[in-house]
Amino acid sequence: MAEPHISVIGGTGDLGSGLCYRWVKAGYHVTIGSRKLSKAEQARARLKAAMPDAEIGALDNAAAAAASDIVVVTVPFEYQTSTLEAIRDAAQGKIVVDTTVSLRPPKVAMVQLPPEGSAGMIAQRVLGDGVRVVSAFQNVPASELWGDGPVDCDVLVTGNDKAARARVIDLAAAAGLRGLHAGPIENSAASEAMTSVLITINRQFKCHAGLRITGLD
Amino acid sequence: MAEPHISVIGGTGDLGSGLCYRWVKAGYHVTIGSRKLSKAEQARARLKAAMPDAEIGALDNAAAAAASDIVVVTVPFEYQTSTLEAIRDAAQGKIVVDTTVSLRPPKVAMVQLPPEGSAGMIAQRVLGDGVRVVSAFQNVPASELWGDGPVDCDVLVTGNDKAARARVIDLAAAAGLRGLHAGPIENSAASEAMTSVLITINRQFKCHAGLRITGLD
Repeated sequence: MAEPHISVIGGTGDLGSGLCYRWVKAGYHVTIGSRKLSKAEQARARLKAAMPDAEIGALDNAAAAAASDIVVVTVPFEYQTSTLEAIRDAAQGKIVVDTTVSLRPPKVAMVQLPPEGSAGMIAQRVLGDGVRVVSAFQNVPASELWGDGPVDCDVLVTGNDKAARARVIDLAAAAGLRGLHAGPIENSAASEAMTSVLITINRQFKCHAGLRITGLD
Repeated sequence: MAEPHISVIGGTGDLGSGLCYRWVKAGYHVTIGSRKLSKAEQARARLKAAMPDAEIGALDNAAAAAASDIVVVTVPFEYQTSTLEAIRDAAQGKIVVDTTVSLRPPKVAMVQLPPEGSAGMIAQRVLGDGVRVVSAFQNVPASELWGDGPVDCDVLVTGNDKAARARVIDLAAAAGLRGLHAGPIENSAASEAMTSVLITINRQFKCHAGLRITGLD
């Protein structure tokens, strides 16, 4: 199986650009999507500065989703639904990796899950049953992705399709992270809520905290 | 300050009895509470078999709560509210450590947080503002507590009173666990939701998974 073509919608932010960096390094064909093409091009320029020989695409969101096999969405919660609606048609039949955390500023260190249960559940609802939604990467210290070693953090991978989850576990590994099957999309509530706990801990310890599951070996 | 007297309500279950074992070993005065005195006495007998010289109390729930400075509640979600109502009067002015996870059998591997937000929030609501509720110990592999070494697991300690959280972090340390300030009681949603993720992982790996926060050092 050829490596999938990945688009990173919201690839201009910390998490999105860090994942782009890792996946380009790992040899994937990556396209950055943004609401504005000019912003996608800026993010590409930053990546090209770090990896001059890399081929990286830059398109608006809908075109980026259409151009790829796996669509990774890395936008703030307030833009999640509008972004998903913009890519919904292009995403049909594909895997969409939703990284959204239902953070509501200013109280981002306090868990405030949405009435729907989780941002992951919202994504599945907005995109419909024709899209395999996988929720992941909520607990990754984004700053660590702009490096080349393994990151001391696990990725909880939730979603209702096991094969899709397995693809995302492969993507996590390509980014230097251990991905773990963590249950159905309802369980994205756990990784999303953990983000507020990690923010609480980051503020206390002035650190970039992550998450590890122990006891597996 | 003298060591607090701890009661463990529901001290007959896996988590409750394991915590009793650890705290008695650490020199705390511990009283086991149960709905039926005979069950509390059975649990005490099991602890006495492991620690013949230990003095351990056994009382019904309300009497156990009345006899102690810190009340630790380790009952299944379905008995949480009735148990808290039974100890509410005795608990006024004290710290109550709620370990409840909002698991709803049979789907315990799927996150199903209650409409109130979390079991910890329910505890604060039922007990009222006169009780300092701290939520903790949701992610501890209970079987590991019947041993003497440190447990490879962190305890997320949530609640609205910092001094009360600090007392519970001390109790975690006495049980061989690292406790971390993890925010207000709303954030117990994170540790409760993580329990279903850990159950999912336990089933996959046939293990007793726990949780570590990385990046602190």
